[in-house]
Amino acid sequence: MGRGRKGQAARKAQGVKVARRRKSAAPGRALAPKRRSAGAETMDIAQLNDRVGYFLRRLQVAIFNDFIRTLAPVDVRPAQYSVLVLIAANPGRSQAAIGKALSIERARLARMLHELERRQWIERRLSSGDGRSHSLFLTAAGKGVMVRIESLAARHERQMVKFIGPDLRHLLLERLWKFGKP
Amino acid sequence: MGRGRKGQAARKAQGVKVARRRKSAAPGRALAPKRRSAGAETMDIAQLNDRVGYFLRRLQVAIFNDFIRTLAPVDVRPAQYSVLVLIAANPGRSQAAIGKALSIERARLARMLHELERRQWIERRLSSGDGRSHSLFLTAAGKGVMVRIESLAARHERQMVKFIGPDLRHLLLERLWKFGKP
Repeated sequence: MGRGRKGQAARKAQGVKVARRRKSAAPGRALAPKRRSAGAETMDIAQLNDRVGYFLRRLQVAIFNDFIRTLAPVDVRPAQYSVLVLIAANPGRSQAAIGKALSIERARLARMLHELERRQWIERRLSSGDGRSHSLFLTAAGKGVMVRIESLAARHERQMVKFIGPDLRHLLLERLWKFGKP
Repeated sequence: MGRGRKGQAARKAQGVKVARRRKSAAPGRALAPKRRSAGAETMDIAQLNDRVGYFLRRLQVAIFNDFIRTLAPVDVRPAQYSVLVLIAANPGRSQAAIGKALSIERARLARMLHELERRQWIERRLSSGDGRSHSLFLTAAGKGVMVRIESLAARHERQMVKFIGPDLRHLLLERLWKFGKP
């Protein structure tokens, strides 16, 4: 493909880190281990070169790993973050509405909310109109920690700009709104 | 954001489908259910508007769902496909080498290979040099089914071009090589 190894040193210089990789924090290492193995033969990825889903999946994993690493001080993972943002911006909305907006499966969301309640960041109140549904709110502690969380999430985003380039990030945000707008 | 609802009808017209969604095969419906609910209030996704990882994850899920749906006739999922492509293009390479190249965890790859062996698409042979490692090959049946699999994968890719636009796909393939090159 004539694209060689350029970029790996550049990414190292940018200091982008990928979390939860045992051997190295550098994404080049985590994502391209074969190139680093002494004497390893080249692996031909053949038709995968033409499958955008394959590359997107690997990018998405790298981005999530960086998010997890960057937000490790508050122990918040990507899906937890999206739930907290929606509760903060839409206080009083139901568990079902949050789950639908984010396409998070009901049981998984219930587990996540249970954990966020345990940390005393959110509270569930029975809706007045409907005894079966819960309205979600951040607690005072939750509002406090969100300041720190958003600061770390913004740092992660700045790392992503360096990692994928501002032009690709801009095009993705512009084009992908339709996939994430509830 | 001023981006409104445009695009949803266009996507429907393009006939792009998303699999494993109960209510509808149309990605607009699956990914933006709140817009379709009568009387639903708008959900503000707030800072998520600025998080490229959030949108990328939703795009990646949509793409994988389309892949799964398109390849349903051969019952091949994205990770299985990537393993089959690498075995086909690199006959005789070890299980460990394939796993490293694709960053697939050892136990998960073992389960996948077991299933592909059960279908008689691949075979594992003990390497002559090292009694502990296995070399992977497609069987004659595997080579035969790969023709059908690649035909369906190419159809999926054409659907993706319509879905995300040729310019975004091109930029992604060009920029993301470094995430997927083993």
